[in-house]
Parts: sequence; structure tokens; C-alpha cells
Amino acid sequence: MRILVLHGPNLNLLGVREPEIYGAATLDDINQAITDLARQLGVEVEFYQSNHEGELVDRIQAAAGKFDAILLNAAAYTHTSVAIRDAVSAVRIPVFEVHLSNTHSREPFRHISLISPVARGVVMGFGPQSYILALRGAVEMLRAEKKA
Amino acid sequence: MRILVLHGPNLNLLGVREPEIYGAATLDDINQAITDLARQLGVEVEFYQSNHEGELVDRIQAAAGKFDAILLNAAAYTHTSVAIRDAVSAVRIPVFEVHLSNTHSREPFRHISLISPVARGVVMGFGPQSYILALRGAVEMLRAEKKA
Amino acid sequence: MRILVLHGPNLNLLGVREPEIYGAATLDDINQAITDLARQLGVEVEFYQSNHEGELVDRIQAAAGKFDAILLNAAAYTHTSVAIRDAVSAVRIPVFEVHLSNTHSREPFRHISLISPVARGVVMGFGPQSYILALRGAVEMLRAEKKA
Amino acid sequence: MRILVLHGPNLNLLGVREPEIYGAATLDDINQAITDLARQLGVEVEFYQSNHEGELVDRIQAAAGKFDAILLNAAAYTHTSVAIRDAVSAVRIPVFEVHLSNTHSREPFRHISLISPVARGVVMGFGPQSYILALRGAVEMLRAEKKA
Amino acid sequence: MRILVLHGPNLNLLGVREPEIYGAATLDDINQAITDLARQLGVEVEFYQSNHEGELVDRIQAAAGKFDAILLNAAAYTHTSVAIRDAVSAVRIPVFEVHLSNTHSREPFRHISLISPVARGVVMGFGPQSYILALRGAVEMLRAEKKA
Amino acid sequence: MRILVLHGPNLNLLGVREPEIYGAATLDDINQAITDLARQLGVEVEFYQSNHEGELVDRIQAAAGKFDAILLNAAAYTHTSVAIRDAVSAVRIPVFEVHLSNTHSREPFRHISLISPVARGVVMGFGPQSYILALRGAVEMLRAEKKA
Amino acid sequence: MRILVLHGPNLNLLGVREPEIYGAATLDDINQAITDLARQLGVEVEFYQSNHEGELVDRIQAAAGKFDAILLNAAAYTHTSVAIRDAVSAVRIPVFEVHLSNTHSREPFRHISLISPVARGVVMGFGPQSYILALRGAVEMLRAEKKA
Amino acid sequence: MRILVLHGPNLNLLGVREPEIYGAATLDDINQAITDLARQLGVEVEFYQSNHEGELVDRIQAAAGKFDAILLNAAAYTHTSVAIRDAVSAVRIPVFEVHLSNTHSREPFRHISLISPVARGVVMGFGPQSYILALRGAVEMLRAEKKA
Amino acid sequence: MRILVLHGPNLNLLGVREPEIYGAATLDDINQAITDLARQLGVEVEFYQSNHEGELVDRIQAAAGKFDAILLNAAAYTHTSVAIRDAVSAVRIPVFEVHLSNTHSREPFRHISLISPVARGVVMGFGPQSYILALRGAVEMLRAEKKA
Amino acid sequence: MRILVLHGPNLNLLGVREPEIYGAATLDDINQAITDLARQLGVEVEFYQSNHEGELVDRIQAAAGKFDAILLNAAAYTHTSVAIRDAVSAVRIPVFEVHLSNTHSREPFRHISLISPVARGVVMGFGPQSYILALRGAVEMLRAEKKA
Amino acid sequence: MRILVLHGPNLNLLGVREPEIYGAATLDDINQAITDLARQLGVEVEFYQSNHEGELVDRIQAAAGKFDAILLNAAAYTHTSVAIRDAVSAVRIPVFEVHLSNTHSREPFRHISLISPVARGVVMGFGPQSYILALRGAVEMLRAEKKA
Amino acid sequence: MRILVLHGPNLNLLGVREPEIYGAATLDDINQAITDLARQLGVEVEFYQSNHEGELVDRIQAAAGKFDAILLNAAAYTHTSVAIRDAVSAVRIPVFEVHLSNTHSREPFRHISLISPVARGVVMGFGPQSYILALRGAVEMLRAEKKA
Repeated sequence: MRILVLHGPNLNLLGVREPEIYGAATLDDINQAITDLARQLGVEVEFYQSNHEGELVDRIQAAAGKFDAILLNAAAYTHTSVAIRDAVSAVRIPVFEVHLSNTHSREPFRHISLISPVARGVVMGFGPQSYILALRGAVEMLRAEKKA
Repeated sequence: MRILVLHGPNLNLLGVREPEIYGAATLDDINQAITDLARQLGVEVEFYQSNHEGELVDRIQAAAGKFDAILLNAAAYTHTSVAIRDAVSAVRIPVFEVHLSNTHSREPFRHISLISPVARGVVMGFGPQSYILALRGAVEMLRAEKKA
Repeated sequence: MRILVLHGPNLNLLGVREPEIYGAATLDDINQAITDLARQLGVEVEFYQSNHEGELVDRIQAAAGKFDAILLNAAAYTHTSVAIRDAVSAVRIPVFEVHLSNTHSREPFRHISLISPVARGVVMGFGPQSYILALRGAVEMLRAEKKA
Repeated sequence: MRILVLHGPNLNLLGVREPEIYGAATLDDINQAITDLARQLGVEVEFYQSNHEGELVDRIQAAAGKFDAILLNAAAYTHTSVAIRDAVSAVRIPVFEVHLSNTHSREPFRHISLISPVARGVVMGFGPQSYILALRGAVEMLRAEKKA
Repeated sequence: MRILVLHGPNLNLLGVREPEIYGAATLDDINQAITDLARQLGVEVEFYQSNHEGELVDRIQAAAGKFDAILLNAAAYTHTSVAIRDAVSAVRIPVFEVHLSNTHSREPFRHISLISPVARGVVMGFGPQSYILALRGAVEMLRAEKKA
Repeated sequence: MRILVLHGPNLNLLGVREPEIYGAATLDDINQAITDLARQLGVEVEFYQSNHEGELVDRIQAAAGKFDAILLNAAAYTHTSVAIRDAVSAVRIPVFEVHLSNTHSREPFRHISLISPVARGVVMGFGPQSYILALRGAVEMLRAEKKA
Repeated sequence: MRILVLHGPNLNLLGVREPEIYGAATLDDINQAITDLARQLGVEVEFYQSNHEGELVDRIQAAAGKFDAILLNAAAYTHTSVAIRDAVSAVRIPVFEVHLSNTHSREPFRHISLISPVARGVVMGFGPQSYILALRGAVEMLRAEKKA
Repeated sequence: MRILVLHGPNLNLLGVREPEIYGAATLDDINQAITDLARQLGVEVEFYQSNHEGELVDRIQAAAGKFDAILLNAAAYTHTSVAIRDAVSAVRIPVFEVHLSNTHSREPFRHISLISPVARGVVMGFGPQSYILALRGAVEMLRAEKKA
Repeated sequence: MRILVLHGPNLNLLGVREPEIYGAATLDDINQAITDLARQLGVEVEFYQSNHEGELVDRIQAAAGKFDAILLNAAAYTHTSVAIRDAVSAVRIPVFEVHLSNTHSREPFRHISLISPVARGVVMGFGPQSYILALRGAVEMLRAEKKA
Repeated sequence: MRILVLHGPNLNLLGVREPEIYGAATLDDINQAITDLARQLGVEVEFYQSNHEGELVDRIQAAAGKFDAILLNAAAYTHTSVAIRDAVSAVRIPVFEVHLSNTHSREPFRHISLISPVARGVVMGFGPQSYILALRGAVEMLRAEKKA
Repeated sequence: MRILVLHGPNLNLLGVREPEIYGAATLDDINQAITDLARQLGVEVEFYQSNHEGELVDRIQAAAGKFDAILLNAAAYTHTSVAIRDAVSAVRIPVFEVHLSNTHSREPFRHISLISPVARGVVMGFGPQSYILALRGAVEMLRAEKKA
Repeated sequence: MRILVLHGPNLNLLGVREPEIYGAATLDDINQAITDLARQLGVEVEFYQSNHEGELVDRIQAAAGKFDAILLNAAAYTHTSVAIRDAVSAVRIPVFEVHLSNTHSREPFRHISLISPVARGVVMGFGPQSYILALRGAVEMLRAEKKA
């Protein structure tokens, strides 16, 4: 089982800048934690971060046939990108939406997600843990579906 | 560490009726799975289901001083109850919002949650797994905060 | 054939108070008229009134397997209760929505019914007659469907 | 007592086309069933169908002094015709709104009726039965009012 | 002259929890202050608090014939309960709306009150004093109306 | 302690015209009643009425340093004046909003107050009594705050 | 100079029915008064009333080359007919909008006119006088423009 | 019979500036034309122009008992002034709304008039003629009402 | 293969009036061009223009069983007619929506088409060419579907 | 004559994935069909597909002076990209909007096109044929304009 | 070159009150800084502050023929005054809108400016510097236009 | 002091195309004028233009630690890019928003800026001068803050 972890715009700044706000964990730290759990669960993971909407679309498309699921934190594009949404619909790989913060306790324009209606599951507000929980949930769900 | 699991209206029907839609898992099955994980994580859990908005408010209030966190699936009241939201704000225990289905792929009136803005984290769309992931996330977060 | 008649909040006041407005018919009078027609049509009826949203949810749930249809006048909860709507959807018994007055000639917030989209039929504006017509319609429809 | 039954646009197609969807009953079948009940109730009925908004207005106007009530299924014009609404208001004959289907479980633009606020009663969702119930309700209401 | 004081959801927590925010006054303190003023004004008062919408409806209904006025702080139900509004309209006892805080300087969903349009008067933002002022105003108004 | 009472547009017509609607009390009568209570409470009051938005702004500004609180019935400007709202925010004297009638049972454009979010307290619907209650509330609140 | 006076749906009922509401003047009376003024002003007038949107469109089109102006009381179609609006735009004859009542003091859906943006002038609220004033205004304006 | 003609903000610029747009007629020219017609109709007229909302309110109030009707061109205040609207309601003199241009063919914020719902009649789009027509209509209406 | 071409309100004016705006092509010219292409493609065409919503509904209904497709330029009724939309849905003949101009670069109320959601294809903005392209597209699509 | 055909995000997946939904035609098949028609019409065509909004902007800009028209299927960016719209406006080459499906029968957020108001013509719902029709229409229109 | 600087409501309080919030600069300080730059640029400036909408209208009108440009900080009236907007449009002197703070990072009702659409340029968020920059920009633009 | 000047999509076309509309100044001309002023003010400037949202995000991120301020003309992305807004928030360098034209006098979708709420200051409508003024304002503000 192979899983793609996609990080959207500005997530490359995690931990590097303003650690007092977003925590000290860098994107590398998060990726490492995901890798550790993946190993423990016996699945492979691959990572990609981009500030470009089009590159995220490219990667989601390219995942077809190569990955069994995508963990997607589209960050700002969550609220504006129909292109990413269409890519998610097109590839037919289950996509799990992840956010570090609880987007519903932020500005109103962050309360609407264009990704959620085409995602399988959503995890938000647990900080870096959000990715960990989504990975567990995704693996469990895929294994249950294979058995059935 | 003690955790209260609150199930809102109509969740008592889970698995009993229309298993072809909502799955074969009953609310008891879900509670059992939660209990198993709780034991493994070394925390206590308690369960309560009600179709009454007022009783859910009563229970959230009564949790103060007795529980360290609440897993709350307010079901239909998610979208209409300011009273439950106010109770969540008042007790100051971290509350984690849980939904079996992805509410964003259902009717528009289910896209707005009055609970989300006052919840710590949200997990939805993983079926019964949603509770399991929320329990893990909650315990991890509380332990991390105690250390800090 | 057994039919449950559910009366929502404040309907217990009918005829008792302000007869010059709502008419002299009490809820008992209405129930008696329904009982008379039911006898004539050869069906059983049972009545329940509550001011509590949760109790109406409980009763709708409990009707599964015991009743063939529900006549539901959810009164004020018509416009605010997702919980009752969900209960109606869950029990899979045909529900017929009833209102004494024409809700569309009243305040704008009464023009939207959360129940209507999940009801089979709607009758409103005929005063106590609304129940009588709904009972006839429900029985006829159920008998026609049995034959088919 | 004389009652006018007005059928709006496209209702002439009933039963003729797509019986698998709208049922096998033609508009003639429905009119026959109404006639049968009318005879039984001792009232006269007259029928008129038109696809033209203006003709429906003409007929409603012409009903003044000749009919005691109108059963009106304005179909598509329900949602767009202020002219029919004004005619209903002007003639001062009680008008009862009828729909075969439950318009509230269809597209959003069918949830608003311009006729409802000026109608006495509304019956919808019972298929051809909707007319039958409305006829009973109208006759009963008019007879009760005459007595009073 | 007898006056019913109704406290809505979560008001039982006043003073008990987070005194640094809501002040040190408990609901008992507030009730005591009301009682003191009532004695001085020569009127009787009775108190009831509930987190249940239905119980508040029951109490408002039961007030008919027993009380001359109601001071109603519906708290969270202020913004969501058509049932309480309908009960207020039905009993025909003058109802005076009370809020401890100024609801207009809080979240937008608290700016709309379903109770205000059917209330006689509104007092908000004076803390526990809001009840005191409303009691004075209610008594004065009722005495003036009796004279007239 | 000195308190400014500001009356907005058209309030000069009170009691003079249409006494059958607004009551027989003139603005002078109301001011006299306020003066009487002020004397009894041991505070000074000053009155000003204007139909001009700009003059109300001037007076609110000029109150700084001279008055301890303002009772403000901005009448029509309540719903349209950002300038008065800004003046209220700028002077930092506590302002108490007063209305003779319950604005929420009038036209929709009167349901929104630009003043409320920057006011300390609001009293409405008690007729001339609204001023009396607001004065009591203001004095009590200011004295309590001085002690604390 | 020739002027067409177009009366929309339900205006044929004027004076015939409910004279206590709409006044005793019939459409013939109004047309007679218009004719009298027209003679006095030395212009020709022609009248047409229809309940059919399409016929009003036909007549407006046919007016091109035959009339110098149109007085148009589109009644209910004022608020719903893009077709009449397009006809008005197409013929390039100045059109003057007339209403007996002040549509702005009626239901909200009558506050929007699709005709006004393409009309030269609007007169409303003067009863039958509205036509008289519009005729005077139209003639004066056309004569002034011819001179210029 | 005495009639007050009130001109709102910026109307003092008429004819003085940009005659190629608003025409060559100054406010004095318009007032002269009104005076001429008034003499012919045997009524007295008085004029007042102000750029100040408050002064327009003052004048409307002061008209009570001195004038039989007001012709009001509130210009920009038409769309923003609740104070002028309230003054119009309070004085109980019939008010006729006048606009030089057709406000419905201008920017959307000019399509809503706060004055129209409390005006008797409205005339717009006839240029200076709008006042002339409104004067005729007002005098005719008042004389007809006196007779009745 | 037989195809009906339906032209809606005001299209009869094409080329006759204001050729500098809508071009010199009359409706007859357009019909001729369609006929020419039809002959070349080996299909039959029939034309109908009406300013009456009801007649367009009649024609769409009558097309069932006689035509294989409809080219529909509903003009103004595009934006207001639920009746035409319902007729299109009912006849189950593929309907292709045509507009001479690009409706999206005109007034906002022309941006919404009630016909589009039930049409197969849409062509707009190519002037008379729009019909030509739609005819080609329709024929090609129908032939491809027959083969499949 | 040279024409640029621009394909937006996710269109590279056509035919490759889910042929049962979008048909078996790949983007190459579509481009080949366009090339065939272009040869027949005697015009040159060039193709470009990108998932990147910025690259589409670059290409539209670069088309100036090199191409006579653009066929643009902006896919998901149709509904979100002001940048592409501005590029279309800036280059002043006529742009023809193309969609495979009828976007109006899909989700509401696809009903609004930011491109349409600046496009010359629109063709949608004919599948791959949409491009073919748009090419024909574009060439014909450009040739007609050259002649004129 | 002569330039009028107009300060709207509550700006007279600058620096006098709450210097910790709005800075220590008084309106006199700002005017002095503007005067200094004006001298350096060789232009004359004149200042006026008012809390009265009508006086601001008067001044803008009076500026015609006397000033070459206006720097306008309409403060609260920015969001509510159609009268000031109309005055700006009427005088045809270029008006430059100035705000001390960035109005877009404040309450939503401050995000809409009625002045911006008729202003030449806008400068906001630079504190007192906003006026300085606007003065430079205005002078430069006017001189460039004179040359051209 | 070092300042980054970022130009968004389509700004590379300035002056090259349609000089009669956007003026003859190319982006190079503007950059030269900025460079000249920068030299005079003793600050360094660097320029970057891109049509790609992602590249603008990259550059804003990369500016951290290298630049003291950013002048940002996000052009079309102003109205749609949450990603650029988030980058602006994240880097914590003061950002000054610049627009050549007054966006408020253009289409409604250009009236909302996602950048403004996180910008320090905004300058628009002065043509190329807008950049010049923003540079002056930024330098002055930064120097003043350094001193403080």
C-alpha cells in the first residue's frame, strides 16, 4: 500500500518562521513522524509540497495507478481551487483532507472547503497529529475495504 | 484521564435499522471499540446517548471537573443548537467533534456546524473509525499539553 | 393498518385558550374526529402531543415496526428541527405533514419547512380538517401501494 | 355548490407520456375521479386546462359569481405568476392549491409558491389523490362556513 | 401581582464557573436580589431554570392564569426557538426579554432574537441589574395599565 | 455624577401630535420624570434634542470630560449613522441605548442598530419608562464600578 | 400625435368588483377621462387591455410607426416580464409607466419593476389620476423635444 | 390650500453647472414654473432647499398645520434617510415624492427609496415636469378628498 | 430526421428594426440559411415564432413524435419561464438552446437561464451563425447516437 | 488564418481515465478532429494544454500578433480565474469559450463563468463536437468581419 | 493651484483623545504637515472639518471654480452618504479619497465606500502620511494633465 | 533598506499593448521611475513580475530576511488568491497594496480585495504614480518606526 502526502502553499514555512504561533515542528518533522507511523503500519509514503495550484493538480493526476490514497492539506487552495477538486474527482483514489488548525474558528472565507465534498474523510485541528490520525484512518479504511 | 463520549439524536438507531446504508455496526459495537482502545491507551471512557438537546446540555455541564475531554457527535443538533455550543464554551473542557459521514457531501444545511468554531479538533467521514481517531488524537494532545 | 398522530409544541393549547382565534375545537375534539374517521376506514390510530423536540424524535423512532404511517404536525419545530427530520428519514415509515393554518400566509420564517422535503404529502390551511384529509389520503395511498 | 378545477401548463401530458414516471392516470382519469366524488358530495364541477398564463387569469376572473371555489394546480406558473396571484386575490372566491408531487422535495425554485399566500388551503404529494382531498376539504369548509 | 422569572440554558452555571468572566454572582444571588425588590414592590415572584427548550415551553404555557407577567432570559434559545416564541404569543401574558450581556456586541448569530418581536420590552447589557430593571419596568407598566 | 440625555430626530413631536398613538406624554414630561428620578438618585441631568445627525455627534463629543454617562435615543439615526457610532466609540463615556417602542416588532430595517454594538446596555419597549429604567441602571452600574 | 394606452392583467376588473377597495371608477371610466384630456390636448388615444403577456408584447411591437408614445400599466407583469421589457426597448417609442397604487407600499416583490429601467417616466399612487398625469407629461415632453 | 415644495441636497446646483447634462433649467426656473401653475390652480406654494438632512426633517415637522401637502424631492437622502421617512410619517400631511430623473435606470443603490412606502404618490423621469405633474395630482387628489 | 426551430418573443423584429444594432438579417433570412444547411445535411426543418409563452409550450408539447430535436431560442422567456422548461423536460426530445448574443455580457438578470439545465447543448454569441452551429451539432449528435 | 486551441486543467485525462463517463475520445483524438476540420477550412491550428493558471495566462498573452482567434476551454479555471479573464480582455483577439459538458446542469458553482462576459461566443454540451462547432463559428465570423 | 482638504466627522478628536490609539498627531499637526508640503510644492491649501454631512456637501459644492482638487477624508460618511457622493460627482473637480487607517481591516460595514467609485485615487493605511501622499499624487497628476 | 516590488498577472503587457487605454508607460518605465525615486531616497529596490500565483507566493516567502517591505500589485490575484494573502501574513514584512486604476469604479468582483485586510496601506487610482506614492509612504513609515 502506497500513500501520497501532499502539502499545499505556505506549509513549507512551518516551524521555520513564527514557531511561537504554529509550533516548533517543521514540515520535515511532520514528514518524519508520518514516515515513522507508515513504517509501523507497513505502508509506503511519499511527500510533495508546492505553492503552485497547477503542480498540485499535476501530482494528484500522476498519483493514479501509483498510490492507494492521498492525504491532502491544500491549505489556502482549499477555499479557492476548483481545479484541485476536479483532479481529486478524476483520479478516483480516496483522498483524505487534513488541516493543522480548525479552519472553522478562523475567518469566514476559510469555513468553506471546495475539497470536502469530494473527500472521503476530514481531520482538522489536531496540529501535526492531524496527519497522523488521517494516515491511521486511511490505512484502516482501505484494509477494511480490501477484505470486504 | 477520563473521557466522555456523547452521542446525539438518532444515533441510537445505528446498525439496528438500514444496515445496508449506515453499516452493520450498532452504537454498542462502536462503544465497545472505543472502550477497547481506551483500555489500551490507559484512559477511562463513559458513554451517553440522547435525542434531547437539553439532556446533552446537562451532560456537557456535568462533565466539568469529572472528565478531561469530550468526544461529541451532536448529529442533527450540530447544525441548530446554540445551547450545546454555549455549554461547550462554558465547561472549558476540550471538545472534539466527531461525525460518521462527511457532512460536507450531504445537504447544504449540514455544511454549517455551530459546534466546530468552539471545538478543538474535528474528525469526519471515517465511519465508526472517526471516534477511534478522535480518541487517539484527544489523548495524545492532552498528554502533550500536560508535559508542556 | 395502524397510524400514529403526532402533535408538536403548543398544540395542547388548542381551543382551551383564545377560541376566537384558533376556533373552539380542542385537541381532544380533533383527536375524536380523527378516531371516528379511522374507525370508519377500518384503521387504528394513536395520539401523542409534546412540547419537547427530543420526545417527538423518540416517538417517531419508536413508531418503526408498530405503525404504517405518521401524521405529523410538528408546529414550531417544523421550521427549526433537523433532529425530527432525521428521525423521519430514518424510520422509513411514510410521514404526512399537517398544519392547521396556511403557514405561507404567516411570517417569512414559517415559509420554510425542514420536514416537507422528507414527507410524502402535505396538507395545510383546512383547520382541523387538515388532519382528516391527511388521514384519508394516507390510508388510500397505503392501500393502493399494497395492492401494487 | 359549483367548483372550478383549473389545471396549469403541461398537465395535459399526464399519463399520455412517461407513465412510468407520472403514473398511468391521464388528466381525463383524474377529472373523472373528481366528477365521481363531486356527484357523491352533491356538487357540480367544471374543468379547464391551459398552457397559457393569460387564459388561466381569464378563467379565474370569469369564475366570479359562477363558482363557489376553485381547485388550482398552477403547475409551473405557481412559481412565476404574479398575474394569477392577483386574479386569485381579486375574485374573492376561496382558492385551494393542489400539486400532484411534493414540490418541496424538488428543485429549490419550486419551493416558493406565489399562490400559497393567497390560497385558503394547500394539498400536495398525494398524486391524483391531492385533487380528491382538496375537493373534500373545500366542500366541507364551505358548508361549515355557510352554517356559521 | 405574580411574576414568573424564567432562566434558559447554561444560566445555572452563573458564578459557579469562570467568575472572572461572568462575575461572581450566582443564579441564586440574582434570584435573591429579584426577590428583595419584589418584596419591596409588593409583588410575588417564582423562579425556574432549565436547559430544555420543551420545559421552558411547558412553563410558559402553565403560567397562563397564574402569573401576570414573565421575565424571560431564554439565553441560547433566544436565537433558535420558534417553539418558545409561539408559547409566548399563545399565553398572552406580557413577556419581558432579559439578557445579562449586550447580545449585539457578540457573534452575529446572537444579533437576531426570535423572542423580541413578541416581547413587550427588552433589557440587556446591565449584568444581573438587567433583571432588576425589567422587574421594575414590568410592575410599573402593569400597574399603569390596570389604572387605565 | 452628571448624565447627558440625548433625544434624536422627531422625538420633539412626542405627545404634541398623535397622542392616541405615542401616548400623551410630551418630551418635556419625559424630561421632567427623568429630572425627578435624577434628583432622588442624587445625580445631575442635562437634555438635548436634535433632528441633525451632525449636532448629535457634536454633543456626544462635547460630553467628554463633562458627563459620566449618556442616555441616547438616536431614533431614526440608530439604523443609519456610522458617525454617531464612531462618536460613541471615541468619547469612551458609557452610553446606554434607549427606545420608547420595541424596535424589533416594527419594520425589518429597524431591527438593525448601529449603536447597540458600542453601547453598554439597551432598554426598549417600556415607553417613557425606558429612560427611567436606563437612568437607574446607568447610575447603579457606574456606582458599582467606582467602588470596585 | 397618437398615444397608445396599454392596461395589463386584472385591470379589466376595476370598479366592477370590490369598489370599496379600488374605487368606483371602471376601466371604461378611466379610458373616458383619458379620452377627454386627449381631446383637450389635441392628441389621439387608443386603448387595449389584456391578461396575456404575449398580447401585450404583440401590441407594443405593433405600435412602432403608428404611435408616438405608450402609457403602460403592466400590472402584475411589471414584476415578472422580461419579454415586455424587451419589447419596450425594441420599439424605441417612449414608454411611460403608470400604476394606480403606490407599489412601494405593498408586498416586497412589487418593489422591483422590470419596466422602470427602460421607461422614460413613472407615475404611481394617484389612482386613475396617474394616467391623466402621465398623459400630460408625455405630451408636454414630446412637444418640447420636437421643438428642440 | 397651501403646498410646501422641498428640494434636497445638490438640487441648488441645477442649471448652474453642467447644463448639457441636467438641462438649462435652474432651481429658480423650476420654482417659477411651479408658482405659475399654483396661481392658475388657485393654491399657494412655498419653497425650501437644503443640503442638510436635519433641516429637511425640521421643515417637514414645521409644515404640520401650515400646509396641506408636501412635494418632496429628497434627492440623495431618498435612499439613506430614515429620519426624513419618520418625519413624513409623523406629520400626517400627504407627501408626494418627486424625482427629475428615472432613478431606476441609474445605479442599483438608487433603486430603493425609503420615502416611497410612506408617500402618497410618486412622479419621476419627466425632468422639471415631474414637479408640475405632482402638483396637479396633489391638488386634484386633495380637492377630491375634501368633497368626499 | 426532422427538426423544429422555435423563436421566442421579439425575435420577429430582427433586421426589420434597428439593423445598425442587431444586424441586417431578418428572421426570414435566418430561417432561409437554416433551411439551406438543412437541405445540405439531408434533414427537414420547420419554423415557429411566438411572443406568447403558452404557445411556445404548446409547440414544444406538439413536437413529441413529430420531431427529432428542437433548436430553441426562448429569448426573454429564457430567464423567466418554468413552464417552457417543464415542457422541454416532458417531451424528451433533445433541445438545443440558441442565443444570437452572448447573454453573459448583458444585464445580470440575463445571466441565469432556466432552460440551460434541461438543454443538451448551448450555442450563443455567434449572431445568426448560432443557429447554424446548433443545427450542425444537433444533427451530428443524433446521428452518432443512432449508430451507437 | 491561425487559431490557438487552449485546454485547461484535467483535460489531459480525457479518454484515458473513466471512458465510461467522459467518452472514449482522448485529448489527442479531439485535437486530431480539430486539425482535420482546420485543414478542410484552410486554417492553421495549434494546441496547448496546462493544469497551471499562470501558463494559460502566458499563452493567451503570447498569442497576440500570432493568432487570429483562441478556442478556450478553461475547465475549472472558468469559474475562478480573474487572471485568465484579464488576459483575454488584454490580447484583444476574439476568444470563443468551449465546454464539453453543459456546465449549467452541474453543481451551482459551475453556473458562473468569469470568461463568458469577455468571450465572443460560447458553445457547450456537444461533447468533443463543441470544439468543432466553435472552430466553424470562429472561422466564419472572422471571414465575415474581414469582408465587411 | 489651490487644493481643499476636507475632514469628516470625529476627525477633530484626533490626538486630543486616546493618543495611545490614534497617535499623538492632532488635526492641527496634520494640517501643518500638509501646509508645509503644499508650500514646498508651490500650491495653496485650505482646511475644513465638520461633523455635519450637509456642511460637507455645502463645502464640496462651494469648491467649484475655487479649487483645483479636493482631498476628502469623509470618515464615517464614507460608508453612508449618497449626498456627499452626489456632490463629488456634480462639482467635477478631481477628488482624492484619504483614510488614516486601512478600512478593509476593520468592521465589514467599513469595507464599502460610496465615495471610491467617484474618486480619482484612494490612499489609506499610512496614518497622517496618507494625506501627504495624496497631496503629492494629486499635484503631480494635475500638473501632468495640464501639460498634456 | 531594501524593498521588493511585485507585479502580478498581465502587468507585463503595460504600455506594450493598448497604450490608448492604459497609457504609454511600459512596466520598464514604471520600474525605472521607482528606481529613480529609490536612489533619491537612499533605498534599494528589486522587481519581479509573474503571471503565476505560485511564483508570487514563492517570492513573497523568499523576501523574508532579505527585504524590509514589499510593494504588491497582485492585479487579478487581488480578488481570488488566499494563497498570496497567507504568504503576506506569514512573512511579517509590511506589505503595501498598489493598483494603477481605482478598482472600485470597475466591475463588482474587483471591489473585494483579499490582500487589503493584511496590507499596511493601500494606494490606487494614480496610474504609475500609485507605485511612487506607495514607495514614499513605505520608506517614511519604516524610518519613523525605526526611530520609535
